[in-house]
Amino acid sequence: MTTALKAPPLDPILDDIVRSHRPQQETGSVPANIPLLAAVPFDRFGIAVATTSGEVFSSGDADVPFSIQSISKVFTLAMALRGDSSGILWSRVLREPSGTSFNSLVQLELEHGIPRNPFINAGALVVTDHLMEETSDAAAQVLRFLTAQAASTGPFIDEAAAASELASSSRNRALAHFLKGFGNLKQPAESVVQNYVRQCSIMMTCVELAKAGLFLARDGHGSLGTVVSPSDAKRIGSIMLTCGMYDAAGEFAYRVGLPGKSGVGGGILVIVPGVCAICVWSPRLDAKGNSLAGTAALADLSDRTGWSVF
Amino acid sequence: MTTALKAPPLDPILDDIVRSHRPQQETGSVPANIPLLAAVPFDRFGIAVATTSGEVFSSGDADVPFSIQSISKVFTLAMALRGDSSGILWSRVLREPSGTSFNSLVQLELEHGIPRNPFINAGALVVTDHLMEETSDAAAQVLRFLTAQAASTGPFIDEAAAASELASSSRNRALAHFLKGFGNLKQPAESVVQNYVRQCSIMMTCVELAKAGLFLARDGHGSLGTVVSPSDAKRIGSIMLTCGMYDAAGEFAYRVGLPGKSGVGGGILVIVPGVCAICVWSPRLDAKGNSLAGTAALADLSDRTGWSVF
Amino acid sequence: MTTALKAPPLDPILDDIVRSHRPQQETGSVPANIPLLAAVPFDRFGIAVATTSGEVFSSGDADVPFSIQSISKVFTLAMALRGDSSGILWSRVLREPSGTSFNSLVQLELEHGIPRNPFINAGALVVTDHLMEETSDAAAQVLRFLTAQAASTGPFIDEAAAASELASSSRNRALAHFLKGFGNLKQPAESVVQNYVRQCSIMMTCVELAKAGLFLARDGHGSLGTVVSPSDAKRIGSIMLTCGMYDAAGEFAYRVGLPGKSGVGGGILVIVPGVCAICVWSPRLDAKGNSLAGTAALADLSDRTGWSVF
Amino acid sequence: MTTALKAPPLDPILDDIVRSHRPQQETGSVPANIPLLAAVPFDRFGIAVATTSGEVFSSGDADVPFSIQSISKVFTLAMALRGDSSGILWSRVLREPSGTSFNSLVQLELEHGIPRNPFINAGALVVTDHLMEETSDAAAQVLRFLTAQAASTGPFIDEAAAASELASSSRNRALAHFLKGFGNLKQPAESVVQNYVRQCSIMMTCVELAKAGLFLARDGHGSLGTVVSPSDAKRIGSIMLTCGMYDAAGEFAYRVGLPGKSGVGGGILVIVPGVCAICVWSPRLDAKGNSLAGTAALADLSDRTGWSVF
Repeated sequence: MTTALKAPPLDPILDDIVRSHRPQQETGSVPANIPLLAAVPFDRFGIAVATTSGEVFSSGDADVPFSIQSISKVFTLAMALRGDSSGILWSRVLREPSGTSFNSLVQLELEHGIPRNPFINAGALVVTDHLMEETSDAAAQVLRFLTAQAASTGPFIDEAAAASELASSSRNRALAHFLKGFGNLKQPAESVVQNYVRQCSIMMTCVELAKAGLFLARDGHGSLGTVVSPSDAKRIGSIMLTCGMYDAAGEFAYRVGLPGKSGVGGGILVIVPGVCAICVWSPRLDAKGNSLAGTAALADLSDRTGWSVF
Repeated sequence: MTTALKAPPLDPILDDIVRSHRPQQETGSVPANIPLLAAVPFDRFGIAVATTSGEVFSSGDADVPFSIQSISKVFTLAMALRGDSSGILWSRVLREPSGTSFNSLVQLELEHGIPRNPFINAGALVVTDHLMEETSDAAAQVLRFLTAQAASTGPFIDEAAAASELASSSRNRALAHFLKGFGNLKQPAESVVQNYVRQCSIMMTCVELAKAGLFLARDGHGSLGTVVSPSDAKRIGSIMLTCGMYDAAGEFAYRVGLPGKSGVGGGILVIVPGVCAICVWSPRLDAKGNSLAGTAALADLSDRTGWSVF
Repeated sequence: MTTALKAPPLDPILDDIVRSHRPQQETGSVPANIPLLAAVPFDRFGIAVATTSGEVFSSGDADVPFSIQSISKVFTLAMALRGDSSGILWSRVLREPSGTSFNSLVQLELEHGIPRNPFINAGALVVTDHLMEETSDAAAQVLRFLTAQAASTGPFIDEAAAASELASSSRNRALAHFLKGFGNLKQPAESVVQNYVRQCSIMMTCVELAKAGLFLARDGHGSLGTVVSPSDAKRIGSIMLTCGMYDAAGEFAYRVGLPGKSGVGGGILVIVPGVCAICVWSPRLDAKGNSLAGTAALADLSDRTGWSVF
Repeated sequence: MTTALKAPPLDPILDDIVRSHRPQQETGSVPANIPLLAAVPFDRFGIAVATTSGEVFSSGDADVPFSIQSISKVFTLAMALRGDSSGILWSRVLREPSGTSFNSLVQLELEHGIPRNPFINAGALVVTDHLMEETSDAAAQVLRFLTAQAASTGPFIDEAAAASELASSSRNRALAHFLKGFGNLKQPAESVVQNYVRQCSIMMTCVELAKAGLFLARDGHGSLGTVVSPSDAKRIGSIMLTCGMYDAAGEFAYRVGLPGKSGVGGGILVIVPGVCAICVWSPRLDAKGNSLAGTAALADLSDRTGWSVF
């Protein structure tokens, strides 16, 4: 819904949010099995807001690149929908909350290889497999897309991190072979996993991610023209709201009231339809895998600005 | 979010929606085990919109009473939150989408008797149990609440239907005893089931339900004053969006983009924050238990009006 | 298989087993929610062997009555099979190991109300329901059967214990209503639960239980004539071996190698086909709900005597 | 238990069983995804009995090689136990019936990567991984073991079939990577899957398999000396009885009453402790993946001979 809401003066609010929410001591967890993410200093905290009127506000470590991880799933979904005039993607993946862990195989088995939504790992592997029909180097294409949308040459794939993560990607390999067994993966399982892990290893800053996600707040219109149709932009927002925060989507909708997508790198991308895209980043995670300080900061920002879709 | 959206002229739109969506032939299913619901003529179709500016629009069978069934869960949740200053309710029921059927015991067992959200049956039984701490006749209190909010003496409990439904409520009894076994039910299981079934058997019209639900579009302000706080109103909306349509919540958010709650009586209550509450009713159901014609009508109405939270 | 194995001299072996296995200090757990069972002194230990040649050996607390609990399921199954010439029972309950907890509802839901076997609670409720077609007081009939087979007037229903257990039988009530919802319970759920709990509250001694179970070691021939056919006797043995020890059936078959059925009262009934029936009792339980000292004693006895079906 | 049972004259019985049970028309199913197995003529039927007294009886297609498939799991388990003085194998795999499908990932996820028993695929992969600690070409070692026990140079690995099966082994790859993710696989996942598939592709005749399995009926003593200890022989028998027939173990124990292990190649190996080893083969399968004619023939043979452990 395009709203007439005028954004309040954001600079002081963002500065205050950084002061209030930057971690003072080490709490929360780091992703098991991804050593390079675990090594990021616990007190990193950045926030950026890109508005539909073309302004960008930021504070804290908003220009420090971090690993976007699962936030990439929003963009691969948009890229897949853009080229999917036949609607075949939605026969391979559903749009319902999963109610189970992001990398669970249980539901996938019970539901015969059709992932519950594109934001759990199984669904994201299917989306990447879909993108690979056009190009075998899907991760590079995701990088080009993000570079263009962010209007920045900053984004890059951290190949060392990707290689390290690949070495401990047994669960994702299991998911990929499982999908393959159900006939829901067209490319070789190992190739899909490699592209998936490399797309997750893209490094971006809060400012870049907020700008890259802005098309979702602008009815699908990105910096270089239409990315997706207005209805697809709304629909990506609805999937973010119902499925974007692992199995804490309900809690996030309850506390923040905005479509969001988090990654285990500690980033969260949030859309305020018609108003702005927000990216917050702080590396330590809660038990569900979402940024601890980031989630708190977004609840605070929502309270201060009145931004909520409800 | 309070929006400045002006509602388009609604009368011709609603009339057209009735013309387009009133079932012409018998399709869809009726609730198994509830004979009185199955007996409602398949071509019933009504729609009503109550706006925050005080107008009410309606068309079709908008003044025919029907069984509100699970739509009652929105109102019992609001009633429970109103009186729950200690927040104890949220220690007894979560706010996450369930990913499983509305009356499943599987998840409840795996999660040790804490229901996933207040809109699956197990969660609604806990909410009713919570209301019964104040009065043993919780169903009568729900009726009084609805009568007041709808500003109508129309609503009544169909006791014959309730008695009939009680006779085939084995699954709800199983859920109640199961909750009891986990210590998450305080009143006798049979009493909770009786109140639950009776609150579901309340008969209301589309016009009455739209008016009764209007407080959720008005930051919690009902016809007689504050029902719940603005933040609780938003939060009920978020639970409706993520959990309100059984296991088709994601699909409904995707197609309609608005918080909604359906009942197996064929009714759906939808909130457009800051704008209006909508109630549509048509008795035949899809495979997930949501009104077939009602869902289609709401998708159509959302397209025509641009109403969507995304 | 009727074997020619001669039993070794048993008296000194049993005495030695009592010396070795009677608990010296309090270890293991007691059944939650059944206070009267929890109150039994931890150092009780009895063992009795009734041979197909008509001898009875015993040692320790073999004449102290204890609550037979789930051991009753062996006898109700035999009673149900005896009268089930049409084989209808096996359309209502399967004969497969469950792989899940004895009182789980998960599998029952996934498998549409057909319990996996007659020894999990859901299956035993179906068996009791089956017996109630002949007499509403099925528990009294079970008592008469056991009294006759044990050739003793000792067995009795501990009605106080039954009443106490009934007050905390929420899970069994949930199972019964769940079965009712699937159409797999004919009598009222509450009546079935009452009979079930009362049959579990029958008090017997090791000597009485060994004698009562002897027909299973004698091709179905009991003290007063045929109880079940030779093939049904073998088949009950096979169900005991695969399903008799809750979810430790595999471990028990591995360590002891004999068909057995345990109860949370601490008793275990074991059959050595063609040779004898054994009952051991000691009240403290392991994590799976089987008698800790009893299981160890049976492994020891199996090693000393060479008794094993493998 | 060593029994004194004298085998009845077997030649006429086996001939009669072949006459009665050889399929006359095509019923049952063939394994999906293994074309070479599906191509075996439906009317193949062979049976062989190797007795502890050194005789071998056979009838029908008892000298036609077939793919042993999961029957190999009995032998890899014996090989692993033989060399596992430390008992480490039993910390990596349990001994309980699974209650779920042979290649399910659900239970494996819920139980954190510890397979329920060595006869489901996940457990067998762990056993093969265990064998690979001694030699990377575990399948060749299994072949050597079988060749020696069968005292025949006949057994061979059908490498073409293995290659074909490997091409459609996505589910087994998923299981292997899943186990790897839980730290319960030491060798590379792909290598374990290759060895596993090749051990399953060993071709043997009924006569050879009966002779190879005879050590399990002789307290662990094989043709060339001790294979496993008497207690391990009994224990393998107990695992066969409780877990050997996929999720029809209970039904097989009920109908046949003997420890058995089946393969999707249509073979079933059965042990009569102290008496003989039996192998029956017929390629068409029932819904659980066990040989249709083979299972019926074994029930018939058990009835005619009285062979049963119960």
